[in-house]
Amino acid sequence: MKNIDVYKAKFLENLEGRYTDKKPDNLYQPIEYILNLGGKRIRPVLVLISADLFADKSSEAIDAALAIEIFHNFSLVHDDIMDAAPLRRGKATVHEKWDINTGILSGDAMLITAYQLFENYPVEHFKPLAQLFSKTALEVCEGQQYDIDFETQTEVDIDAYIKMIEYKTAVLVGAALKMGAIIAGANQEQQTYIYEFGRLLGIAFQIKDDYLDVFGDESEFGKQLGGDIIENKKTYLYLKALEGKQKEQLQHLFSVTPLDPSAKIKTVKHIYEASGAAEATLKEIEKYTLMAFECLEKIELSDDRKAYLKNFGLNLMNRTF
Amino acid sequence: MKNIDVYKAKFLENLEGRYTDKKPDNLYQPIEYILNLGGKRIRPVLVLISADLFADKSSEAIDAALAIEIFHNFSLVHDDIMDAAPLRRGKATVHEKWDINTGILSGDAMLITAYQLFENYPVEHFKPLAQLFSKTALEVCEGQQYDIDFETQTEVDIDAYIKMIEYKTAVLVGAALKMGAIIAGANQEQQTYIYEFGRLLGIAFQIKDDYLDVFGDESEFGKQLGGDIIENKKTYLYLKALEGKQKEQLQHLFSVTPLDPSAKIKTVKHIYEASGAAEATLKEIEKYTLMAFECLEKIELSDDRKAYLKNFGLNLMNRTF
Repeated sequence: MKNIDVYKAKFLENLEGRYTDKKPDNLYQPIEYILNLGGKRIRPVLVLISADLFADKSSEAIDAALAIEIFHNFSLVHDDIMDAAPLRRGKATVHEKWDINTGILSGDAMLITAYQLFENYPVEHFKPLAQLFSKTALEVCEGQQYDIDFETQTEVDIDAYIKMIEYKTAVLVGAALKMGAIIAGANQEQQTYIYEFGRLLGIAFQIKDDYLDVFGDESEFGKQLGGDIIENKKTYLYLKALEGKQKEQLQHLFSVTPLDPSAKIKTVKHIYEASGAAEATLKEIEKYTLMAFECLEKIELSDDRKAYLKNFGLNLMNRTF
Repeated sequence: MKNIDVYKAKFLENLEGRYTDKKPDNLYQPIEYILNLGGKRIRPVLVLISADLFADKSSEAIDAALAIEIFHNFSLVHDDIMDAAPLRRGKATVHEKWDINTGILSGDAMLITAYQLFENYPVEHFKPLAQLFSKTALEVCEGQQYDIDFETQTEVDIDAYIKMIEYKTAVLVGAALKMGAIIAGANQEQQTYIYEFGRLLGIAFQIKDDYLDVFGDESEFGKQLGGDIIENKKTYLYLKALEGKQKEQLQHLFSVTPLDPSAKIKTVKHIYEASGAAEATLKEIEKYTLMAFECLEKIELSDDRKAYLKNFGLNLMNRTF
């Protein structure tokens, strides 16, 4: 097993210049742009790691890693249009730099080129890879729709919320790991365990994201804390706090958008703590992390490889930003 | 071989209710809506016809026919957003009835569900079907981008225009026929000939579309003639007429959008005739139609089956509306 940075470098090397000379320019330059905005590249790295974990096949997993990353960026391009987001990773979003039509069409082309990358695999891997990809991609769309639906719902069931983050985020982490396992020739059972490990860790990661948005380390978080509170986002913290006594006050606070949000953030933060929602959220993160690690135990890998994967998971979960 | 209406009825029977109970509603209801707006269903019918032509396999070709029609409607949903079109087949477009975000996301889900339909085929057909689908879908995106690019270009090369309509429209006709051939187990050579037949006929069909928009039978055309002239669209007629003496007058006419377009339509129509562009366009349509029929001759099919396909092509081409 190699260092994470080695996997990332290997991936970036293969990403470089893929769309530079493709015509028409106006279709492919936005794709080149968004794919080179940076990011942690966690998903493609997980494909490579998984292929190495099971059979040292990371070299054969490059195309699947590219497909996963291109799909992820496709979803960012379209989501950014839907959210009217001006910035992505500190740079202009595609629809800001070009226009909405460009964002739609270049996004569509990304989704298709992601599928095409699986064509480089032998037919016995092509079908399971494309099938997993389609299932996951459709779940991501459904998750995005649930997220949009929640915005206008006054009551959101907490299980429905978990399902939303599972679909919108976690299944792609599971799929990335499962793709590596497919390419490495792991059996169905092993494929399922590593998928579940990724899915559960993805859920934990996303709930942690909600938590850090309020309780993160300001100096490390890279953006202002309380963004979700400012935007009245129904996060795990919020939904859990609604179960407490200050439900009406919280709902009122989330029905207004003051110009200076500092007092609102302070009050909501207090409610999250006083209601026990903050603690319950940490427990939920721990629950999903432990479930993920239980899955990991079932995978037939040497102890040092399991430790490698567990360590990756712990690093992901122990971030304070 | 069955009557076209029988194929269409068989297709519609299988289309019905596919998305009725799928959740989330806000993702799948727009899909149900656009798929049931009607239309001639030429593309899916061609999949069924082709599968029967080669091996009486239309029953096995239903899923591919659905994929082609769902993809076609996906492209309509996204194109209608890009064109800010309020109506599609006389009804509200998806982004008008719901909103742009719904059009984007439901469109994305359509593209993915189209891919999923190929999963119902055995692995030896799954790969060629998905591969042909991806190639074609990407060409459709590229064609749409060329079409957008042409809007702001003063000079459009006539070969580039043909390539645009080939990609935007004709390749999907070719792909529909080739899919039927793949499912029927036809060999590579036969697959290529039927694809070429569809592609060439598709180009002829699209140039005819340009022609009928100006010279069609008003009572049968179903919409006002001269729509392309009103919208200053660079059609085959226009680009051909630019090669004549009245280039500057024509370019001027296409730089204005008068409230009452009748005089403009009359003058442009006259230029199209006087410059010989109208005649040249008819010749071009004939050229591509004949090339399509030459391909048809090379296909190994009984004479009555060839006659069936030729008749279908002739009906498509001899329309006056």
